[in-house]
Amino acid sequence: MSERIWTAGLVVIGDEILSGRTQDKNVAQIAVWLNVQGIRLSEVRVVPDVESRIIEAVNAMRTGHDYCFTTGGIGPTHDDITVDAIAAALGVPVVIHEGARAMLAGYYETRGGLTDARLRMARVPQGAALIPNRMSGAPGIQVGNIYILAGVPNITAGMLDALTGTLEGGKPVVSGTIGCWVAESEIAELLGAVERAHEGVAIGSYPFFREGRVGANFVVRATDIHVVDACIADLTGQLEAGGREVTAGGI
Amino acid sequence: MSERIWTAGLVVIGDEILSGRTQDKNVAQIAVWLNVQGIRLSEVRVVPDVESRIIEAVNAMRTGHDYCFTTGGIGPTHDDITVDAIAAALGVPVVIHEGARAMLAGYYETRGGLTDARLRMARVPQGAALIPNRMSGAPGIQVGNIYILAGVPNITAGMLDALTGTLEGGKPVVSGTIGCWVAESEIAELLGAVERAHEGVAIGSYPFFREGRVGANFVVRATDIHVVDACIADLTGQLEAGGREVTAGGI
Repeated sequence: MSERIWTAGLVVIGDEILSGRTQDKNVAQIAVWLNVQGIRLSEVRVVPDVESRIIEAVNAMRTGHDYCFTTGGIGPTHDDITVDAIAAALGVPVVIHEGARAMLAGYYETRGGLTDARLRMARVPQGAALIPNRMSGAPGIQVGNIYILAGVPNITAGMLDALTGTLEGGKPVVSGTIGCWVAESEIAELLGAVERAHEGVAIGSYPFFREGRVGANFVVRATDIHVVDACIADLTGQLEAGGREVTAGGI
Repeated sequence: MSERIWTAGLVVIGDEILSGRTQDKNVAQIAVWLNVQGIRLSEVRVVPDVESRIIEAVNAMRTGHDYCFTTGGIGPTHDDITVDAIAAALGVPVVIHEGARAMLAGYYETRGGLTDARLRMARVPQGAALIPNRMSGAPGIQVGNIYILAGVPNITAGMLDALTGTLEGGKPVVSGTIGCWVAESEIAELLGAVERAHEGVAIGSYPFFREGRVGANFVVRATDIHVVDACIADLTGQLEAGGREVTAGGI
């Protein structure tokens, strides 16, 4: 029986990413975290702060994958519309979550009190649970297979930390890397042949140009470390047989 | 008559982004470049090196926007399948572009010659034109409203440079920024009211936590700099009237 692969889609919500003002950091950190949970990040969509666009992307990701993650748009201001969009996507009303209200009331007790704007951060799609946020008062939200996280990367990280070990997944992808001072175009056929000879591996080729020379790193990925090791040994042997020096771990 | 807004969708092709191994740099650089051309980046999809997934994303972006850009997957190795996927999406065959063959033959003349693997980089969807690449031999490709660019960010940059001024667009979005040591939740209503009072502006609120204090930058975007300036003046005036210190240009 072939093994079950668990996948996730990510919706990054934010005009600031699409305008180029902010360099996204969440795709990479969520990808790495998901892999540790045995879940593969299979697609990312970046959409603007527009309700219809968020609804469309969330519906595609939640139905197309085991899990749908979102980042951004859960703060207290007028451009924070993620909760409303996801409630609309699910066809449920937005309600105040009493646990979130209590968290926020505690957090803001010594910080000016729980105003109407701050209470916005206790709004959730009906039926949701909270994801703790140790960095600031406002929690993340889980509803069905949707995980609604903050957009600020260190707050996102705290929420991921709270979710660690709670999601069902399969085997994590493991990888090995070797580097070689070679133009990838010189060994393209060899790479393809080695990949075909080792079932279940994918070999990525990442060329670079440094110190006036071209080279490439080759990353072998699979769910079984023995399969990765065998493929790395084969690729290394074939490159060395061709008179090329190979650097274990990559250059 | 309302002004025509030109939009683009971007498809980032690459297992290395979805695995978290590589931090994407192309979204931000393409977003900024597009804005200078008067085109708004309206959506990004990151997909794996899987033909069916590339086809689906490219078809969605090329039909949903004025322009579709792609990055990645145009090198010489087995995992470079972008050209095949886009040809399939368009229902046209893949052909060798004679101009690309000549470019590659010239580039590799002193670098070991034009091998079969290198000739892969002259393959284009039928009907395509080339986008010059001053960094290395392999060109980018334009076919219909699709612009197929390299994934390595400095090569992507060279291709964008070659395209500068060649795409029809509208008015670029201009912006102004102010910063304030305030919790965004304290002024959420004020922000929303100011945005509503100035037609055609969008105000983004970007909170941060530094030096033990919370603050936020507010970015006002519109296509008319006078509209931006009036909105910035109004917002500054209202914050200062509330006893808050405002830093022009952001904190």
